[in-house]
Amino acid sequence: MTEIKNQDNIKIAVLGGDLREIAAAEVLTGQGCEVTLYGFDAYGKAVGHPAAEAPGDAAVLLLPVPAFRVERLNLPFSEARLTCRDVEAILDAPSLRTVIGGMIPEELSEAAARRGIAVCDVCREERFQILNSVPTAEGALAIAMIHLSITLHDAETAVLGYGRIGKTLCRYLIGFGTRVTAVARKEKDLTESTLCGCTSCDFGALPDRAGRFDVFFNTVPHTVITEPILRNMKEKAFIIDLASRPGGVDSDAALRYGIRVIRALSLPGKVAPISAGRILADCVLRQLREGSS
Amino acid sequence: MTEIKNQDNIKIAVLGGDLREIAAAEVLTGQGCEVTLYGFDAYGKAVGHPAAEAPGDAAVLLLPVPAFRVERLNLPFSEARLTCRDVEAILDAPSLRTVIGGMIPEELSEAAARRGIAVCDVCREERFQILNSVPTAEGALAIAMIHLSITLHDAETAVLGYGRIGKTLCRYLIGFGTRVTAVARKEKDLTESTLCGCTSCDFGALPDRAGRFDVFFNTVPHTVITEPILRNMKEKAFIIDLASRPGGVDSDAALRYGIRVIRALSLPGKVAPISAGRILADCVLRQLREGSS
Amino acid sequence: MTEIKNQDNIKIAVLGGDLREIAAAEVLTGQGCEVTLYGFDAYGKAVGHPAAEAPGDAAVLLLPVPAFRVERLNLPFSEARLTCRDVEAILDAPSLRTVIGGMIPEELSEAAARRGIAVCDVCREERFQILNSVPTAEGALAIAMIHLSITLHDAETAVLGYGRIGKTLCRYLIGFGTRVTAVARKEKDLTESTLCGCTSCDFGALPDRAGRFDVFFNTVPHTVITEPILRNMKEKAFIIDLASRPGGVDSDAALRYGIRVIRALSLPGKVAPISAGRILADCVLRQLREGSS
Amino acid sequence: MTEIKNQDNIKIAVLGGDLREIAAAEVLTGQGCEVTLYGFDAYGKAVGHPAAEAPGDAAVLLLPVPAFRVERLNLPFSEARLTCRDVEAILDAPSLRTVIGGMIPEELSEAAARRGIAVCDVCREERFQILNSVPTAEGALAIAMIHLSITLHDAETAVLGYGRIGKTLCRYLIGFGTRVTAVARKEKDLTESTLCGCTSCDFGALPDRAGRFDVFFNTVPHTVITEPILRNMKEKAFIIDLASRPGGVDSDAALRYGIRVIRALSLPGKVAPISAGRILADCVLRQLREGSS
Repeated sequence: MTEIKNQDNIKIAVLGGDLREIAAAEVLTGQGCEVTLYGFDAYGKAVGHPAAEAPGDAAVLLLPVPAFRVERLNLPFSEARLTCRDVEAILDAPSLRTVIGGMIPEELSEAAARRGIAVCDVCREERFQILNSVPTAEGALAIAMIHLSITLHDAETAVLGYGRIGKTLCRYLIGFGTRVTAVARKEKDLTESTLCGCTSCDFGALPDRAGRFDVFFNTVPHTVITEPILRNMKEKAFIIDLASRPGGVDSDAALRYGIRVIRALSLPGKVAPISAGRILADCVLRQLREGSS
Repeated sequence: MTEIKNQDNIKIAVLGGDLREIAAAEVLTGQGCEVTLYGFDAYGKAVGHPAAEAPGDAAVLLLPVPAFRVERLNLPFSEARLTCRDVEAILDAPSLRTVIGGMIPEELSEAAARRGIAVCDVCREERFQILNSVPTAEGALAIAMIHLSITLHDAETAVLGYGRIGKTLCRYLIGFGTRVTAVARKEKDLTESTLCGCTSCDFGALPDRAGRFDVFFNTVPHTVITEPILRNMKEKAFIIDLASRPGGVDSDAALRYGIRVIRALSLPGKVAPISAGRILADCVLRQLREGSS
Repeated sequence: MTEIKNQDNIKIAVLGGDLREIAAAEVLTGQGCEVTLYGFDAYGKAVGHPAAEAPGDAAVLLLPVPAFRVERLNLPFSEARLTCRDVEAILDAPSLRTVIGGMIPEELSEAAARRGIAVCDVCREERFQILNSVPTAEGALAIAMIHLSITLHDAETAVLGYGRIGKTLCRYLIGFGTRVTAVARKEKDLTESTLCGCTSCDFGALPDRAGRFDVFFNTVPHTVITEPILRNMKEKAFIIDLASRPGGVDSDAALRYGIRVIRALSLPGKVAPISAGRILADCVLRQLREGSS
Repeated sequence: MTEIKNQDNIKIAVLGGDLREIAAAEVLTGQGCEVTLYGFDAYGKAVGHPAAEAPGDAAVLLLPVPAFRVERLNLPFSEARLTCRDVEAILDAPSLRTVIGGMIPEELSEAAARRGIAVCDVCREERFQILNSVPTAEGALAIAMIHLSITLHDAETAVLGYGRIGKTLCRYLIGFGTRVTAVARKEKDLTESTLCGCTSCDFGALPDRAGRFDVFFNTVPHTVITEPILRNMKEKAFIIDLASRPGGVDSDAALRYGIRVIRALSLPGKVAPISAGRILADCVLRQLREGSS
């Protein structure tokens, strides 16, 4: 993790989010930033200020990860309801220099740009993605362990997608003695996965092999688990879908074949908010350091 | 897993237990045994016969693991209440040759011996213990992941006891990149643990180091987590106690210091009943084969 | 490994190379190809034909990996000396459709193109590179074990470059309990290496830390081990340079500081010729299949 | 490793041995002991004193590991030839309190006991054995890598014996992606090996499976690789015998079948003398501490 000194008491407004943002705020405070929370009024020991008061005189606005859910700012600990347009209004604060958050909508980015405010979408930062593959993979394993009536050790698993999350997940599964099939498109990924102890399989061959797996982990954000795969699954097999909306499963077909699909989104903030908060803070601090250099 | 053919349609009465025993019954049936379930009347789709009818004309009586809980036969899926004495009466069935179960009370073993019936306590079988270390360790990890607000990867953990469960647990934790301290008494275990990537620590040194751990896994079945250790723990640290009763924690002191203790007993049957059932069936089949040879 | 049927008895001329090419020829023959060896006259039990007779009526010409050494075709098992121009003449054979080899010179590629002959340089194939990272890493470890007077377990090592070879090497070293520092340039690689158990370090920080390492593995093919690093090394530290010419070490400075540099090139063919031959054959078969589709 | 302070400048005579003993002497000196070397006259830069002058006024006599080879004290760096009887005479030195060494002959132990001198045979110390399994296993792997013409990754291997060395060796092999069969006698070891990713096999089943292995590692010190096994081996398979004399192979049968047997004894001192010396010094220091307590 990054250690950054001398942030000159930079003022940060944390607007919304959940335990992850609270944890990030603590780390940032510990690094010398002056952090104020907005939109945590409904959180246990009501901390900070109402969402409407953001950003005060902060130079940095930290939005949630993801910033919005169903077109409202992601404020699980507040009664407030803010649209994208409401947030855009906040950008008029003359002190603001930087906006950081996850999956920031295009129109908000443009609105910031017009005002000369730098925008950093952490979800596009490789380091953020790689570090978050750890809480995501751990969360996915916990879900699998809870739902399987066999051990991971005895299970036969398929991991769809061999990107950041897929790789970490495969590595952990191998550690349990699980038989893992990595399903990928690129020759490079298929080959690399075999060196790490996986069986490799390209998407075209998956329907034929689908019948052997007890659990499918999907990390690919478009429909890769199609009818021919679902049709061939074992009776008790299930899918843990880690991909952001719309996910990777043909839901209608899954319903038809009675295949259980567990949607597991935003696992880092849910399963390990403090670790996730540290990762977020690390990303903010790097952005501030690079922005100021 | 053992594959045994020609069990001559040996008749087995499975009396009580939970999903693990049902899974074991399926495996045994698949291996050619003639299995009848007793004491599963309250199980969803009411299978088998009332507990009172056991053992029919079976040659083998399979009791639960553990056989008894608070002095009653372990019958979670039945309304019936059987004492040790009731089970002793069952042993009078002239067809019975073998009793198999877990933690069979001394008096029942003796009663069987007097009748010339062989007794096998699976909990004393090394193979059973070693194989069950897998579902136990997986279950313990799932519990830890659920209760930690950081990732296992970021956690600092102590594993008390470096026996079968301790070893498997340490290995899995290391796989997550967790910093693991193995706490043991024997020089041999301490040394071996360091080769596997753990830090080693003898019990005497634990109080001084207790403050660094986020989670303690205990596998030692007597009070090893004493007041001096509890006193030094971090505020949010907690204990997962895997040891059979009375467990390894000074409960009064834990209460006094506000340390959360999660008692996690009989994990195999709970977290992975089918794998646990296979392990149990494997043990039964080996016993039958050896007994008949 | 690829299994390809019905190669229609495709005729392959293997011209030069070492045990790796002989092993590849065996695999190709086993897959139904009609293989003739050229340029192995000085090999123990003189097999095949003189280099000058190549390619006969073959459709595929397999050149060595690398194809040339100091401007002569790589023919360690033959007295023959062939220049690039000599090989170009071979391309005039009317039966030739494809040339495959490693580090094929630009001028030869162009000569082939002019004749409508397809060219495949295996060294540019990702799959070939990834699979060869295994024999390369194993060979590097064997060299390290032979030269170290401590165990790898006790050693502190630096791996420069986190590409295919660097990753495999780090993974194996971690398996020995070695403390590994991955030195890389890209943020992404630095971050990923830490998830796999390495300490990460960017090149700028290496001089300051150079004094702690017992052995350096270099995989970067330009001068990254410069004077400031060499100056700070431990007395008995040494470098295993796996990078192709000119390698990664400032040789003059190394000489001045008395640092031993072990140049370890073309390890796959040397340490595991049969595995290397299988990898080569796999690459040839894929090329044939794709070329014909 | 043990760190012991205040050894009161205890005087230690190191009599014979190789680089391991020289490395141990350095560590012991660093820990405050007063160490004198005897029997290293033929070592490069002739250090210490002639063997005949030992033990001077030392309280501790450190003999080599193993102490004797073919009935002569193990003095590879000296022209001197000392019999067991000669060493017994050395024990008359009035300052001597403790003798430490490896595989100390019974008669010498008794001679020491008669003089009230404590004897410690490091080869009987579990900690010594476990720690030495690391250089032994690393050395065995290096030998295997050098002799195999395939990678360890591609190899199919058998490890005979699942004791300290067998376990470490299996673990390292698994790390290379090697398919490992652990051959053992005890049910417990067989079961444990499967949890670590090995296939298990009892000795009775080995002849039938012998034909699949590329390399056999033997750790069992009596003839376990018998004619029926040797007869079924692959043509190019070979054996690395790590067991102390007489080793584990029926040499006559091996010769008859043309199976290569590589005898690899005392690997720690050969492949990693400094690590081996540290382990030896650790054992000496523990002995001194415990002896004095």
